Amino acid sequence: MTNETATAESLLDRTLRNLRSAWTEFSDSTRYYLSGAPRPDLPGDDLAKIRQQMLDCLEAKGGEVSARARAAELGRSYLALNATGRHRFLALLAEQFGPDREEVSAAVAVLQDAESEEDRRRAERRLREALVPHWRRLLTRFTALPEGVKFLVDLRAELLPMARKSPELADLDADLRELLAAWFDVGLLELRRITWEAPAALLEKLIAYEAVHKIRSWEDLKNRLDSDRRCFAYFHPNMPQEPLIFVEVALVDGMSDGVQALLDESAPSTDPKAANTAIFYSISNAQRGLAGISFGNFLIKRVVDVLEHEFPNLKTFATLSPIPGFGSWYAEAIKVGEGPKLTASERRGVLQALGLEDDGTSDTDLVERALAVEQWWTDPALADAVKAPMMRLAARYLMTAKRGNGTARDPVAHFHLSNGARMERLNWLGDPSPNGLRQSRGMMINYLYKLSEIDDNHEAYSDGGRVTASSAMRALARS
Amino acid sequence: MTNETATAESLLDRTLRNLRSAWTEFSDSTRYYLSGAPRPDLPGDDLAKIRQQMLDCLEAKGGEVSARARAAELGRSYLALNATGRHRFLALLAEQFGPDREEVSAAVAVLQDAESEEDRRRAERRLREALVPHWRRLLTRFTALPEGVKFLVDLRAELLPMARKSPELADLDADLRELLAAWFDVGLLELRRITWEAPAALLEKLIAYEAVHKIRSWEDLKNRLDSDRRCFAYFHPNMPQEPLIFVEVALVDGMSDGVQALLDESAPSTDPKAANTAIFYSISNAQRGLAGISFGNFLIKRVVDVLEHEFPNLKTFATLSPIPGFGSWYAEAIKVGEGPKLTASERRGVLQALGLEDDGTSDTDLVERALAVEQWWTDPALADAVKAPMMRLAARYLMTAKRGNGTARDPVAHFHLSNGARMERLNWLGDPSPNGLRQSRGMMINYLYKLSEIDDNHEAYSDGGRVTASSAMRALARS
Amino acid sequence: MTNETATAESLLDRTLRNLRSAWTEFSDSTRYYLSGAPRPDLPGDDLAKIRQQMLDCLEAKGGEVSARARAAELGRSYLALNATGRHRFLALLAEQFGPDREEVSAAVAVLQDAESEEDRRRAERRLREALVPHWRRLLTRFTALPEGVKFLVDLRAELLPMARKSPELADLDADLRELLAAWFDVGLLELRRITWEAPAALLEKLIAYEAVHKIRSWEDLKNRLDSDRRCFAYFHPNMPQEPLIFVEVALVDGMSDGVQALLDESAPSTDPKAANTAIFYSISNAQRGLAGISFGNFLIKRVVDVLEHEFPNLKTFATLSPIPGFGSWYAEAIKVGEGPKLTASERRGVLQALGLEDDGTSDTDLVERALAVEQWWTDPALADAVKAPMMRLAARYLMTAKRGNGTARDPVAHFHLSNGARMERLNWLGDPSPNGLRQSRGMMINYLYKLSEIDDNHEAYSDGGRVTASSAMRALARS
Amino acid sequence: MTNETATAESLLDRTLRNLRSAWTEFSDSTRYYLSGAPRPDLPGDDLAKIRQQMLDCLEAKGGEVSARARAAELGRSYLALNATGRHRFLALLAEQFGPDREEVSAAVAVLQDAESEEDRRRAERRLREALVPHWRRLLTRFTALPEGVKFLVDLRAELLPMARKSPELADLDADLRELLAAWFDVGLLELRRITWEAPAALLEKLIAYEAVHKIRSWEDLKNRLDSDRRCFAYFHPNMPQEPLIFVEVALVDGMSDGVQALLDESAPSTDPKAANTAIFYSISNAQRGLAGISFGNFLIKRVVDVLEHEFPNLKTFATLSPIPGFGSWYAEAIKVGEGPKLTASERRGVLQALGLEDDGTSDTDLVERALAVEQWWTDPALADAVKAPMMRLAARYLMTAKRGNGTARDPVAHFHLSNGARMERLNWLGDPSPNGLRQSRGMMINYLYKLSEIDDNHEAYSDGGRVTASSAMRALARS
Repeated sequence: MTNETATAESLLDRTLRNLRSAWTEFSDSTRYYLSGAPRPDLPGDDLAKIRQQMLDCLEAKGGEVSARARAAELGRSYLALNATGRHRFLALLAEQFGPDREEVSAAVAVLQDAESEEDRRRAERRLREALVPHWRRLLTRFTALPEGVKFLVDLRAELLPMARKSPELADLDADLRELLAAWFDVGLLELRRITWEAPAALLEKLIAYEAVHKIRSWEDLKNRLDSDRRCFAYFHPNMPQEPLIFVEVALVDGMSDGVQALLDESAPSTDPKAANTAIFYSISNAQRGLAGISFGNFLIKRVVDVLEHEFPNLKTFATLSPIPGFGSWYAEAIKVGEGPKLTASERRGVLQALGLEDDGTSDTDLVERALAVEQWWTDPALADAVKAPMMRLAARYLMTAKRGNGTARDPVAHFHLSNGARMERLNWLGDPSPNGLRQSRGMMINYLYKLSEIDDNHEAYSDGGRVTASSAMRALARS
Repeated sequence: MTNETATAESLLDRTLRNLRSAWTEFSDSTRYYLSGAPRPDLPGDDLAKIRQQMLDCLEAKGGEVSARARAAELGRSYLALNATGRHRFLALLAEQFGPDREEVSAAVAVLQDAESEEDRRRAERRLREALVPHWRRLLTRFTALPEGVKFLVDLRAELLPMARKSPELADLDADLRELLAAWFDVGLLELRRITWEAPAALLEKLIAYEAVHKIRSWEDLKNRLDSDRRCFAYFHPNMPQEPLIFVEVALVDGMSDGVQALLDESAPSTDPKAANTAIFYSISNAQRGLAGISFGNFLIKRVVDVLEHEFPNLKTFATLSPIPGFGSWYAEAIKVGEGPKLTASERRGVLQALGLEDDGTSDTDLVERALAVEQWWTDPALADAVKAPMMRLAARYLMTAKRGNGTARDPVAHFHLSNGARMERLNWLGDPSPNGLRQSRGMMINYLYKLSEIDDNHEAYSDGGRVTASSAMRALARS
Repeated sequence: MTNETATAESLLDRTLRNLRSAWTEFSDSTRYYLSGAPRPDLPGDDLAKIRQQMLDCLEAKGGEVSARARAAELGRSYLALNATGRHRFLALLAEQFGPDREEVSAAVAVLQDAESEEDRRRAERRLREALVPHWRRLLTRFTALPEGVKFLVDLRAELLPMARKSPELADLDADLRELLAAWFDVGLLELRRITWEAPAALLEKLIAYEAVHKIRSWEDLKNRLDSDRRCFAYFHPNMPQEPLIFVEVALVDGMSDGVQALLDESAPSTDPKAANTAIFYSISNAQRGLAGISFGNFLIKRVVDVLEHEFPNLKTFATLSPIPGFGSWYAEAIKVGEGPKLTASERRGVLQALGLEDDGTSDTDLVERALAVEQWWTDPALADAVKAPMMRLAARYLMTAKRGNGTARDPVAHFHLSNGARMERLNWLGDPSPNGLRQSRGMMINYLYKLSEIDDNHEAYSDGGRVTASSAMRALARS
Repeated sequence: MTNETATAESLLDRTLRNLRSAWTEFSDSTRYYLSGAPRPDLPGDDLAKIRQQMLDCLEAKGGEVSARARAAELGRSYLALNATGRHRFLALLAEQFGPDREEVSAAVAVLQDAESEEDRRRAERRLREALVPHWRRLLTRFTALPEGVKFLVDLRAELLPMARKSPELADLDADLRELLAAWFDVGLLELRRITWEAPAALLEKLIAYEAVHKIRSWEDLKNRLDSDRRCFAYFHPNMPQEPLIFVEVALVDGMSDGVQALLDESAPSTDPKAANTAIFYSISNAQRGLAGISFGNFLIKRVVDVLEHEFPNLKTFATLSPIPGFGSWYAEAIKVGEGPKLTASERRGVLQALGLEDDGTSDTDLVERALAVEQWWTDPALADAVKAPMMRLAARYLMTAKRGNGTARDPVAHFHLSNGARMERLNWLGDPSPNGLRQSRGMMINYLYKLSEIDDNHEAYSDGGRVTASSAMRALARS
C-alpha cells in the first residue's frame, strides 16, 4: 500500500499544485497583468510586494472580474511559496490586516454616546462592522475562484500547526475557522453513501484519510464496502468529490467484540437484512483544515436514521471503538504507583502463566512482565491471566479520568459521550494490532447509541460531566 | 397563461406549504414533543409561547438533533401564521433577540482597558462576538432543516416589505441580508444553461419569475430556448431547482433594435454559428428574498465567457433593454416645463401628421397630442414626427438624470453602467407593447459590453458617476 | 392547445428534418462523396441512381466507416423525397432487394440431398441465410448512424399505411416489424416514471401522443403528474427521450366510475398513501412505427409491481377504459333491429322523461329520440330513463361481440382480456365528452387486474375466447 | 495483484452467482412454483425434467409474466449445474430444440409448388420461419429477465470451448453468436471515455480483462488513465457497467518505439495538448462470450475522431503492437532450416559479442546461442548483434506469412490490416518483458492509421490479401 496509493499529504500537495495551474488559465482569461512569482521564502522585498497585492485585492477597483483576477494572482503567489514563505504570508495577514482600530474606537465612542434605541442599534451595527478584520474580506475573495473553498480549507490545514506555535496567528486561525464553520454548517452538507461503485478518485481518498484502522489495499477497501457494510460521508456542494468525514459500519449479528473479524477480507459476507446490530467501527475526519468544526454528532444520527429505514431488523446501534488515550494514561499510572492490582487468585494465575515462583514482585511489575512477553496475546493462559486487572484499569480510566474542564480525558470517549452514547462493553483483545496494543493495550469498547436515552445522556454529560455506562462497566470500574 | 401557470406568489405559497408538511414528518421522526400550532394572528398568549420556543431554540439543550427538532417546530409555528402573526413573530425577534447589551458594555470596557496587543485582540474578539444578535444564531438553526436555506430566503421575501415600513425590523432585515449574502457568495453558485430539456418544474419557474418581457405561454418559452437562443441561470447548491437570476440571450446578426422580432414565435430560427452578435434581452431576479445581493454583474460576464467559447464568430455583446424610469421622469419633466422641444421643421412635421394648423400650442402640448392619438405608433407619419424630440429627451434622461448619490436615476442604466457597459444606441419604437409604451415611451436602448473597456467604464462610473456612451448617444443628449 | 403544442405529426417531421441535417455533418466528416439529392418524387432516372446507391450500400467496399457514410447518404436521399418518392423508394426495396432466389433454390436442393445429420444442419443453416432478404442487411446498416434506430421506426410509420394498400410492400413491412420486434424486446426496455420534473422536451411528447383522453394544456398535464398520480413509460436505450408506450394512473379511494373527476384540474390532490385503488385511466402507444409490437401487457404488470411496492395499501388495480367499438356496433345493431329493448316500466320512464304520450313508437326509436335531445346526459330524468337498456346492450356487446378469429370485437376489451384482466363494472356516463358519447355512448368500463386470476383468465381467453366478467356484468349481459 | 484483484474468471463466477440469487427473488415475486434445483451434473432423470422445463418455456401458457417466471426458473436450473451438467444442458438444447423439420419439409414443398410471385413470397416467409431453431425462441426469453443479456453473453463464454470440441454444439454456438451480433450491433453501442473518476467496480474489470499488457496494480491503472492518456470503451445499454472492448492510448511526441516507457508509473505526465502522436498501445476484448463479433475496427476509428476533436495538434495515429504469432512461427522456421541468416559482418559481430571463435556453427545456431544468454537484451553488444537478422525475419513473417484463406498469419496484423492500417515501423526490443520476449522475441510494431489511406488499404487487403507497409518495412522484408 505505502508506495501504491496517495497519502493525505500527497493528495493535498497535488490539489494545491493543480489549483495553481488552474488559476493561471483563469488569470490569463481575465487579461489581468501578472507580475512575476515571489521567491519561495518571501524575503523582505517580496513581502512588500505581497502586501501591495493584498491591498489591491481589498480595494476592489475595476469591477468584480478584475477583483477575481487579483485574488487569483494573490492565491498563486501563496502557492508559489515554501513553508517559510507561507508563514510570512500568513503572519503579514494576521498582523497588518486585522480590524481597523481607529474606526473601532470611533464606533465605540458613538455607541457610548447613543441615546435613542435607534442610535444605539446603528452604533452597534457600525461597531460590528468595524470589528471585522480586513483579512476576512480578503480571504472571502477566494471563493469566487474555482476550487476556492477547498483552497481555504487547505490553507487552514497549513495554518493550524503554525498557529499552535505562533500566538499572533491564532486570531487569524480562529476567524478562518469561524468563516469555514458558517459555510460548512451541517445543514448545507449532503450525506452520501459510498459504495464500490464510487469513483476511484474518491475511494483513493478514503484510503488516504482513514485514521482509525488503516486501509491496507484496494481489496481491504472493497471488503469494507461489501453488501453487509455501509460507508457514509458528508460532502459540501462546492467540494463534491471531497469527503469531509466518513463512517464505516458493519451489519452483524450481536455486538462485535473485536475488529479483526470485521477487517478480515476472506470472511464471507452475510445477509444484511438478517442483521440485528449496526457496528460503527471507524469514523475519520478527512479535512484537516476543518479541525474544530464538528460533523460527527450529526453524522452518526443521520446514519442511524438511514439504516433504520433500510434495515427494519436492526435493534442495536453501537460503535466498536479504540481507547486511544489509555496507553499514555496507563504509563503515567504506573509511574505514580497506580498500576494494576491483582487479587490473590489473579496473582497466582499470572505467576503460573509466566512459569514463575512468587518472589514478591509487585502486582504492577508482574503484569508488566506478562505484557513484555513477545506475542503475549496469542498465549491464552497469559492473556487470560492479565485480562481482569487490565480491564478494571481501563474501565476506571474511561469513567473517571478527566481533563481540567471536567470532560472525559479519552478523546473518543469524549466524542461519543457528547453525542449522548453510553459506555456499554469493554472487549478484551478487541484489537491486538500493533497500534491497538500500543494505544489501547489491545482493548476496545462499544459505545451504545440508544435513541430514547441520547438526549438525557448528552444533557448529563454536558452539564456535569457525568458519564453514562452499563452496569457491567460501572461494576468493573468500581472493583 | 394567467390561469394556466403558477405565478411567483403561488409558487412561494406552495413552497412554504410543502415545507410545513415536510417538517412535520421531520419533527415526528425526532420524537420531539410538539405543542399545538399558534393561532394565526399570534395574540398575546401565543406570542409568549413563541418567545419561549425561541429561547428553547437558543439554549441548545439535549444535543443537536433535539435542537433541530425545536427549530422545525418554531419554523412550523411561523408557517402557521397569517400576515399579522408573521409581523409579530418577526418584531419579537427583532426587539428581544438582538445583541446582549450587558455583554457588549462589559466587552467595551475590557477593550478600553486593554494594554498589550494580545489583550486588545482578545477583547476585540469578545466584543465582536457580543455584538452578534441572538436572532442570527436562531435563524442559522433553520439551515439544518431540509429546504432550510430556501425557507430563510422566502422569510426575507416576506420581511422586506415589512421592514420598509417598520424601522424596528430594518436591522433584522439587514442582518439576514448579510447572512444570505455570505451563503450566496457568487463563488458558491453554479452557472447552468437552461434548455427545453430542463425539467418542466424548473421551466415553470422561469415563466413565473420573468420580470422584463412576460412569457405568455409554454410555446413562447420554447421559442426563447430555441437553437439560436441561450438562457443561463445561477443556482445555489442547496436549492438546485431554484434559479436565482437568469438571462435570456438571442444570437443574431447585427445589434437588435426591437424586442418584438425576438419574441415572435413564428420567426424561423437561424444558424447560431453564423451570428455575430449576442443580445441580452432579459435579465430577471428570481428570488425576492435575495434583493440587495447582486449576481447580475458576474452573470453577464460569465455568460459572455461561455458564449465566446461556444461561438467564436461573436463580435458584439450587447443588451436590448427597457428604460423603465423614463415614463415617470418624462411626466415630471412636462410638469416643470422641461417637456419635448421641437425644431421648426419638426414642428411642421408634427402639425402635418396631426392634420392641424399651427395655433401656437406649445411644443410639449403638440407632442402630447400626437402621443394621445390611438395607436399613434402604427401611423408612420405620426411616429416619425415625434421620434427626434422624444429620443433627445430620452438620451438626456439616461445620461444626465441622477439620484441624490450621483448614480443614474434609471435603475437598468445604473445596473449596466456599474457593470462597465456603455450606452450604445437608442431604438425608437423598440418595444411598442403597452408596458413598453408606458414605461419607456416605446423606446429601448442597447448597452454594449466591450471587454477591453469594462474596467475603465466601471471605474469612471463608480468614482464620479461618469456615464460612458457612444458619440451618437452623446450627440443626441446634447442637441 | 392546438396551435400551442406540437402534434405527433409535427414531431415526426421535425425529427426527420433534424436527422437529415445531422447526417450531413456525419457524411462530411467521413469525407465520402455525396452526389446531389434526388428529385422529390423520384422519377425514373433518379430511381436508377437510388438503386445503385442501394447496391453500393450492400457491397460494403472500403471498410465499415465508408459503409456508414454510404448508409448516411442513402438515408438522406430518402429524407429528401416526398410521399410519392418514398413510396417508390420502398417499392424498389421490396421488389428488388428480397432474398436471393437462385441461392434459395440451390440451398433447397442441397437440403433435400443431405444425408448425415451434420449435412442436414449445414444445409438448413445455408438455406436460412439465403432466405434473409437483402433489404434486411440494408436496413440494418442504418443503426450505425446517430438516431438510426429512430429513423427505422419512423420509416415504418410511413411504410405501414402504404403496405395496407400495396401488397407488394407487405413483406417488407412484416420483415421490418420483425427486425424492430427483436430490438424492442421488452427485456431490453427500461421502465421509467415520468414526473413534472421530466424534461419539457419529453413532456411535450406525452401531450402529442396521448391517444385516449387528449391533454388540453400543460396545466392539464401537470394535474396528471400530481402527487396522487403516476405516469410510467417504456424507453429504449437507443431512444432515451422517446417514450414507446405510457400509462397514466390515479391513486384513489374506491374504483373510479367516471373520468371527468380524474381530469378535473381544480380538484385537490389527495394523499396517495391512503389510496386503496390504482386506476389505469389511459394507455397510449407513442410510436406508430412500432405498431404490432406489444408492450402494454408487460407495462401494466410491471407498473402494478412498482405501485404495490410503493403503496402497500393498494388493494385494487383496475382500469377505467372507453368502449371504443360500441358506437359503431350499436349503429349496426339498430339497423338490423337489434337496438335497445325496454321493459314496460322503462318504457313509461322514457316517455315521461321526454314528455310524450305512448304512440307506439318502437323501443329503439324511443331511446333514439331520447338520445337526440341536446345535452340529454345533463337531464337526470332522461339520463336515468335510458340507462338500463343502454347498459344491457353495452354489456352484451362487450361480452359476446366477436371478430372472425373468435377474439373480442372491442379492441380495448381484447387488449385487457389478453392480459388476463376481467370485466368488472360498467359505468353509466363515465365519459360524457363529445368523444366519449360518440364512441362509447358515454359509458366506461373497469377492467380488473387481480394477480391471482390473471394467468387463468389469460388462458381461458387465449384458448377459447372465453371472456371473464364479474357476476354483475354477466347478469347485465344476460338480461 | 494476483491475490488482490478479481480475475476475469472470478468476475464471471460472481456475476452468475448474483444472477442466480437475483432471479430467485424474481421468481418468488411472480408466485410461480419452483421445483427443486437439479443435481449439479444433471443425471438422466434431471435431464428429463429440464427438457420438460424447456418445453414449458416454449409453450408460453398463462401470459408473459408466467413465461418470464419459467425462464427465470430454467436459468436458475442452468446456474445450479457444474461443467458436466451445463454441457448436457446445452447438448439437449442443440439436439432437441433445432428447427421443426416436418414444417421445414412442408414449407419447402409449398415453395417449390408456388406459382405466383405472391405465393412464392408467402412460402419463402413460411420457410424462413420454419428454419428458426426452437432454441432461439428459448434463449430470447432470457432477455426479459434482469441481466438477461449478460447471462446469454456469459452462457456463450461457456459454450464456446465446448463447441470447439463437440460439433453438435457448433450450430447452437453459431446461432447464439448471430443473435448476440444483432443485439451488439455497433450502432447500438455507446463509446465512453474511462477515467480515474470511473466507478471502482468498473475499473476493476479493466484490470481483470486487460489482455495485452497486464495491469499490475491500481497505481499502474491510474497511470494509464493519467492526463496524457486516454482510455475508451464500448458499452451496451443493457450492460452499462460492462465494457465490451477497450483501448488505451498514450498522447506523446513522436511515434513510441517501446512500451516500457509508456507503462512506467514514475514517468511524469506530459502536456497532452502539445502531443503530436496518439499511440494505441493496448486493445482488449472484455467479453469472451462476444468472440467473433467485431467492435475493434469501429472503436479505433471512433476514438481517432474523438481525439482529433479534442487535440487538434495530433498528426499521427498509430499503434504500438505486439507480434504475438512470431514466436511460434520462428520456432517452426528454425525447424525447417528457415532461421536467421547473417551477413559476414553480422556473423563477426555475433561471434565477438559472444566471445567465440568461428567454429562453423550455422547462422541460425549462432543466433540461438546469443538469444540463450541470460538477459541477453541487457547486453548492448549482444542485442545489437542479433538485431538486424531478427528484424528481417520478423518483417518477412509479418508481410508474407499467411493462413490458408490468404489472410495474415499474425492475428494482430490481420486485425489492423483489415482495418486499413499499414505496417509502419518495427521496433527492436520494444517489449523485453518475459511475455514480449516469448511471443514477439522482444519486438513491437507500429501500425499506422492514415485516414486518407484507410479505405484503399482495407480494399487491397480484403480483395487480395495485399499487405500495405512502409518502404522501410518492405526493404527489411526483402533483404
